Amino acid sequence: MKQVKRRSDCPINFALEIFGDRWSLLVIRDLMFRGKVHYGDFLESEEKIATNILADRLRVLEHAEIIEKTLDTSDKRKETYSLTKKGIDLLPVLIEIIMWSAKYDPKTVAPKQFVESARKNKEKLLKEIRAGLKQNKYYFPD
Amino acid sequence: MKQVKRRSDCPINFALEIFGDRWSLLVIRDLMFRGKVHYGDFLESEEKIATNILADRLRVLEHAEIIEKTLDTSDKRKETYSLTKKGIDLLPVLIEIIMWSAKYDPKTVAPKQFVESARKNKEKLLKEIRAGLKQNKYYFPD
Repeated sequence: MKQVKRRSDCPINFALEIFGDRWSLLVIRDLMFRGKVHYGDFLESEEKIATNILADRLRVLEHAEIIEKTLDTSDKRKETYSLTKKGIDLLPVLIEIIMWSAKYDPKTVAPKQFVESARKNKEKLLKEIRAGLKQNKYYFPD
Repeated sequence: MKQVKRRSDCPINFALEIFGDRWSLLVIRDLMFRGKVHYGDFLESEEKIATNILADRLRVLEHAEIIEKTLDTSDKRKETYSLTKKGIDLLPVLIEIIMWSAKYDPKTVAPKQFVESARKNKEKLLKEIRAGLKQNKYYFPD
Protein backbone atom coordinates (compact mmCIF):
# COMPACT_ATOMS: atom_id res chain seq x y z
CA MET A 1 0.00 0.00 0.00
CA LYS A 2 1.13 3.46 -0.87
CA GLN A 3 2.36 5.29 2.20
CA VAL A 4 1.04 8.82 2.21
CA LYS A 5 2.32 11.49 4.55
CA ARG A 6 -0.21 12.30 7.26
CA ARG A 7 -1.87 15.67 6.92
CA SER A 8 -1.69 16.22 10.69
CA ASP A 9 -1.70 14.37 14.02
CA CYS A 10 -5.10 15.79 14.97
CA PRO A 11 -7.37 12.98 16.23
CA ILE A 12 -10.21 13.97 13.88
CA ASN A 13 -7.79 13.86 10.98
CA PHE A 14 -6.39 10.47 12.06
CA ALA A 15 -9.87 8.97 11.74
CA LEU A 16 -10.70 10.74 8.47
CA GLU A 17 -7.52 9.48 6.83
CA ILE A 18 -8.77 5.94 7.46
CA PHE A 19 -12.55 6.11 7.03
CA GLY A 20 -13.28 9.66 5.81
CA ASP A 21 -15.25 8.69 2.72
CA ARG A 22 -18.79 7.83 1.68
CA TRP A 23 -18.43 4.05 2.02
CA SER A 24 -16.15 2.77 4.80
CA LEU A 25 -18.59 3.31 7.65
CA LEU A 26 -21.27 1.47 5.68
CA VAL A 27 -19.03 -1.60 5.54
CA ILE A 28 -18.33 -1.22 9.26
CA ARG A 29 -22.10 -0.87 9.83
CA ASP A 30 -22.72 -4.12 7.92
CA LEU A 31 -20.16 -5.94 10.09
CA MET A 32 -21.29 -4.32 13.35
CA PHE A 33 -25.07 -4.55 13.12
CA ARG A 34 -26.02 -6.87 10.30
CA GLY A 35 -23.75 -9.88 10.58
CA LYS A 36 -22.46 -9.52 7.04
CA VAL A 37 -19.11 -11.24 6.67
CA HIS A 38 -18.50 -12.07 3.02
CA TYR A 39 -17.45 -9.86 0.14
CA GLY A 40 -20.69 -10.55 -1.71
CA ASP A 41 -22.78 -9.59 1.35
CA PHE A 42 -21.38 -6.05 1.32
CA LEU A 43 -22.10 -5.71 -2.41
CA GLU A 44 -25.76 -6.49 -1.74
CA SER A 45 -26.36 -3.63 0.70
CA GLU A 46 -28.91 -1.08 -0.48
CA GLU A 47 -26.35 1.66 -1.19
CA LYS A 48 -24.89 -0.52 -3.97
CA ILE A 49 -21.16 -0.13 -3.42
CA ALA A 50 -19.13 -0.82 -6.56
CA THR A 51 -16.85 -3.84 -6.41
CA ASN A 52 -13.63 -1.89 -7.04
CA ILE A 53 -14.49 0.62 -4.29
CA LEU A 54 -15.38 -2.21 -1.89
CA ALA A 55 -12.10 -4.01 -2.58
CA ASP A 56 -10.19 -0.79 -1.96
CA ARG A 57 -12.07 0.05 1.26
CA LEU A 58 -11.62 -3.49 2.64
CA ARG A 59 -7.89 -3.24 1.95
CA VAL A 60 -7.59 0.10 3.75
CA LEU A 61 -9.65 -1.08 6.74
CA GLU A 62 -7.61 -4.26 6.99
CA HIS A 63 -4.34 -2.31 6.76
CA ALA A 64 -5.60 -0.04 9.56
CA GLU A 65 -6.42 -3.17 11.62
CA ILE A 66 -10.08 -2.25 11.90
CA ILE A 67 -11.13 -5.47 10.18
CA GLU A 68 -9.44 -8.80 9.64
CA LYS A 69 -9.81 -11.43 7.00
CA THR A 70 -9.79 -15.16 7.65
CA LEU A 71 -10.33 -18.11 5.40
CA ASP A 72 -13.52 -20.05 5.82
CA THR A 73 -12.65 -23.40 7.44
CA SER A 74 -15.10 -25.29 5.23
CA ASP A 75 -14.24 -23.53 1.98
CA LYS A 76 -10.67 -22.26 1.80
CA ARG A 77 -11.46 -20.05 -1.18
CA LYS A 78 -14.03 -18.10 0.78
CA GLU A 79 -12.81 -15.19 2.88
CA THR A 80 -14.61 -14.05 5.99
CA TYR A 81 -14.28 -10.51 7.35
CA SER A 82 -14.71 -9.51 10.97
CA LEU A 83 -14.15 -6.47 13.14
CA THR A 84 -11.07 -6.39 15.34
CA LYS A 85 -11.18 -4.88 18.83
CA LYS A 86 -10.07 -1.59 17.26
CA GLY A 87 -12.99 -1.88 14.84
CA ILE A 88 -15.53 -2.75 17.53
CA ASP A 89 -14.30 0.31 19.43
CA LEU A 90 -15.84 2.43 16.66
CA LEU A 91 -19.27 1.45 18.02
CA PRO A 92 -19.71 4.68 20.05
CA VAL A 93 -18.94 6.72 16.92
CA LEU A 94 -21.61 4.81 14.97
CA ILE A 95 -24.15 5.17 17.79
CA GLU A 96 -23.66 8.96 17.94
CA ILE A 97 -24.03 9.23 14.17
CA ILE A 98 -27.25 7.18 14.34
CA MET A 99 -28.58 9.42 17.14
CA TRP A 100 -27.80 12.57 15.17
CA SER A 101 -29.38 11.30 11.96
CA ALA A 102 -32.42 9.98 13.82
CA LYS A 103 -32.91 13.48 15.21
CA TYR A 104 -32.51 15.38 11.96
CA ASP A 105 -33.63 13.08 9.17
CA PRO A 106 -37.44 12.95 8.91
CA LYS A 107 -37.12 9.93 6.60
CA THR A 108 -34.79 7.99 8.88
CA VAL A 109 -35.22 4.25 9.24
CA ALA A 110 -33.31 4.25 12.55
CA PRO A 111 -35.44 1.96 14.73
CA LYS A 112 -37.25 3.92 17.44
CA GLN A 113 -36.50 1.29 20.05
CA PHE A 114 -32.78 1.49 19.35
CA VAL A 115 -32.74 5.28 19.58
CA GLU A 116 -34.79 5.15 22.77
CA SER A 117 -32.40 2.60 24.32
CA ALA A 118 -29.41 4.78 23.47
CA ARG A 119 -31.11 7.85 24.90
CA LYS A 120 -32.05 6.11 28.14
CA ASN A 121 -28.93 4.11 28.85
CA LYS A 122 -26.15 4.29 26.29
CA GLU A 123 -23.69 2.24 28.35
CA LYS A 124 -26.17 -0.63 28.63
CA LEU A 125 -26.83 -0.61 24.88
CA LEU A 126 -23.09 -0.56 24.10
CA LYS A 127 -22.57 -3.54 26.40
CA GLU A 128 -25.42 -5.48 24.80
CA ILE A 129 -24.14 -4.91 21.27
CA ARG A 130 -20.56 -5.80 22.26
CA ALA A 131 -21.75 -8.98 23.98
CA GLY A 132 -23.83 -9.87 20.91
CA LEU A 133 -20.85 -9.45 18.59
CA LYS A 134 -18.87 -11.99 20.61
CA GLN A 135 -21.62 -14.55 20.00
CA ASN A 136 -22.25 -13.57 16.39
CA LYS A 137 -25.62 -12.14 17.36
CA TYR A 138 -26.45 -8.91 15.64
CA TYR A 139 -28.79 -6.08 16.41
CA PHE A 140 -30.33 -5.77 12.96
CA PRO A 141 -29.74 -9.06 11.16
CA ASP A 142 -31.01 -9.05 7.59
CA MET B 1 -27.26 22.59 -5.84
CA LYS B 2 -27.68 19.35 -7.72
CA GLN B 3 -30.26 17.13 -6.06
CA VAL B 4 -28.95 13.60 -5.95
CA LYS B 5 -31.13 10.63 -5.08
CA ARG B 6 -30.35 9.28 -1.62
CA ARG B 7 -28.61 5.94 -1.58
CA SER B 8 -30.71 4.79 1.39
CA ASP B 9 -32.52 6.08 4.47
CA CYS B 10 -30.06 4.37 6.82
CA PRO B 11 -28.92 6.83 9.52
CA ILE B 12 -25.24 6.11 8.88
CA ASN B 13 -25.77 6.79 5.20
CA PHE B 14 -27.70 10.02 5.92
CA ALA B 15 -24.64 11.39 7.73
CA LEU B 16 -22.14 10.14 5.14
CA GLU B 17 -24.04 11.78 2.31
CA ILE B 18 -23.45 15.12 4.05
CA PHE B 19 -20.02 14.84 5.66
CA GLY B 20 -18.60 11.51 4.45
CA ASP B 21 -15.35 12.88 3.06
CA ARG B 22 -11.83 13.73 4.20
CA TRP B 23 -12.50 17.41 4.90
CA SER B 24 -15.94 18.33 6.22
CA LEU B 25 -15.35 17.23 9.80
CA LEU B 26 -12.11 19.24 9.86
CA VAL B 27 -14.08 22.39 9.06
CA ILE B 28 -16.62 21.45 11.75
CA ARG B 29 -13.70 20.83 14.14
CA ASP B 30 -12.32 24.30 13.40
CA LEU B 31 -15.71 25.88 14.15
CA MET B 32 -16.40 23.70 17.20
CA PHE B 33 -13.08 23.79 19.03
CA ARG B 34 -10.89 26.49 17.56
CA GLY B 35 -13.10 29.53 17.09
CA LYS B 36 -12.33 29.78 13.39
CA VAL B 37 -15.07 31.71 11.61
CA HIS B 38 -13.70 33.14 8.38
CA TYR B 39 -12.97 31.48 5.07
CA GLY B 40 -9.28 32.29 5.34
CA ASP B 41 -9.07 30.78 8.83
CA PHE B 42 -10.06 27.35 7.51
CA LEU B 43 -7.49 27.58 4.73
CA GLU B 44 -4.78 28.07 7.32
CA SER B 45 -5.41 24.82 9.22
CA GLU B 46 -2.52 22.37 9.14
CA GLU B 47 -4.20 19.91 6.77
CA LYS B 48 -4.09 22.59 4.04
CA ILE B 49 -7.49 22.30 2.46
CA ALA B 50 -7.60 23.57 -1.12
CA THR B 51 -9.75 26.64 -1.69
CA ASN B 52 -12.07 24.96 -4.22
CA ILE B 53 -12.68 22.01 -1.87
CA LEU B 54 -13.30 24.36 1.04
CA ALA B 55 -15.82 26.40 -0.97
CA ASP B 56 -17.61 23.21 -1.97
CA ARG B 57 -17.68 21.79 1.57
CA LEU B 58 -18.95 25.06 3.07
CA ARG B 59 -21.73 25.11 0.48
CA VAL B 60 -22.78 21.54 1.28
CA LEU B 61 -22.65 22.11 5.05
CA GLU B 62 -24.67 25.31 4.71
CA HIS B 63 -27.22 23.57 2.48
CA ALA B 64 -27.51 20.83 5.12
CA GLU B 65 -28.07 23.56 7.76
CA ILE B 66 -25.06 22.41 9.78
CA ILE B 67 -23.42 25.81 9.43
CA GLU B 68 -24.73 29.27 8.62
CA LYS B 69 -23.14 32.28 7.03
CA THR B 70 -23.67 35.84 8.19
CA LEU B 71 -22.16 39.10 7.07
CA ASP B 72 -19.76 40.80 9.42
CA THR B 73 -21.51 43.85 10.87
CA SER B 74 -18.35 45.94 10.63
CA ASP B 75 -17.31 44.79 7.16
CA LYS B 76 -20.19 43.74 4.93
CA ARG B 77 -17.86 42.03 2.49
CA LYS B 78 -16.60 39.67 5.15
CA GLU B 79 -18.59 36.51 5.79
CA THR B 80 -18.66 34.80 9.15
CA TYR B 81 -19.48 31.12 9.53
CA SER B 82 -20.98 29.51 12.61
CA LEU B 83 -22.44 26.19 13.64
CA THR B 84 -26.22 25.89 13.85
CA LYS B 85 -27.89 23.83 16.59
CA LYS B 86 -27.84 20.90 14.16
CA GLY B 87 -24.09 21.45 13.72
CA ILE B 88 -23.40 21.74 17.44
CA ASP B 89 -25.31 18.47 17.87
CA LEU B 90 -22.45 16.76 16.04
CA LEU B 91 -20.30 17.35 19.13
CA PRO B 92 -20.84 13.82 20.53
CA VAL B 93 -19.75 12.35 17.19
CA LEU B 94 -16.54 14.42 17.27
CA ILE B 95 -15.85 13.49 20.89
CA GLU B 96 -16.17 9.76 20.16
CA ILE B 97 -13.86 10.09 17.16
CA ILE B 98 -11.32 11.93 19.33
CA MET B 99 -11.54 9.21 22.00
CA TRP B 100 -11.02 6.47 19.44
CA SER B 101 -8.06 8.16 17.79
CA ALA B 102 -6.52 9.02 21.16
CA LYS B 103 -6.66 5.31 22.00
CA TYR B 104 -5.22 4.00 18.77
CA ASP B 105 -2.90 6.67 17.40
CA PRO B 106 0.47 6.66 19.18
CA LYS B 107 1.27 10.03 17.59
CA THR B 108 -2.00 11.67 18.58
CA VAL B 109 -2.01 15.28 19.73
CA ALA B 110 -5.36 14.82 21.47
CA PRO B 111 -4.82 16.64 24.79
CA LYS B 112 -4.61 14.18 27.69
CA GLN B 113 -6.74 16.38 29.92
CA PHE B 114 -9.51 16.47 27.33
CA VAL B 115 -9.50 12.70 26.88
CA GLU B 116 -9.45 12.22 30.65
CA SER B 117 -12.42 14.58 31.10
CA ALA B 118 -14.40 12.73 28.45
CA ARG B 119 -13.57 9.39 30.05
CA LYS B 120 -14.55 10.53 33.53
CA ASN B 121 -17.67 12.51 32.80
CA LYS B 122 -18.68 12.89 29.18
CA GLU B 123 -21.94 14.69 29.94
CA LYS B 124 -20.11 17.37 31.94
CA LEU B 125 -17.58 17.92 29.16
CA LEU B 126 -20.34 18.17 26.54
CA LYS B 127 -22.14 20.76 28.66
CA GLU B 128 -18.97 22.81 29.13
CA ILE B 129 -18.18 22.87 25.43
CA ARG B 130 -21.76 23.75 24.51
CA ALA B 131 -21.82 26.55 27.09
CA GLY B 132 -18.48 27.83 25.78
CA LEU B 133 -19.76 27.92 22.20
CA LYS B 134 -22.64 30.20 23.24
CA GLN B 135 -20.11 32.69 24.60
CA ASN B 136 -17.62 32.26 21.75
CA LYS B 137 -15.20 30.56 24.12
CA TYR B 138 -13.42 27.62 22.57
CA TYR B 139 -11.72 24.59 23.98
CA PHE B 140 -8.59 24.76 21.86
CA PRO B 141 -8.27 28.33 20.57
CA ASP B 142 -5.37 28.84 18.22
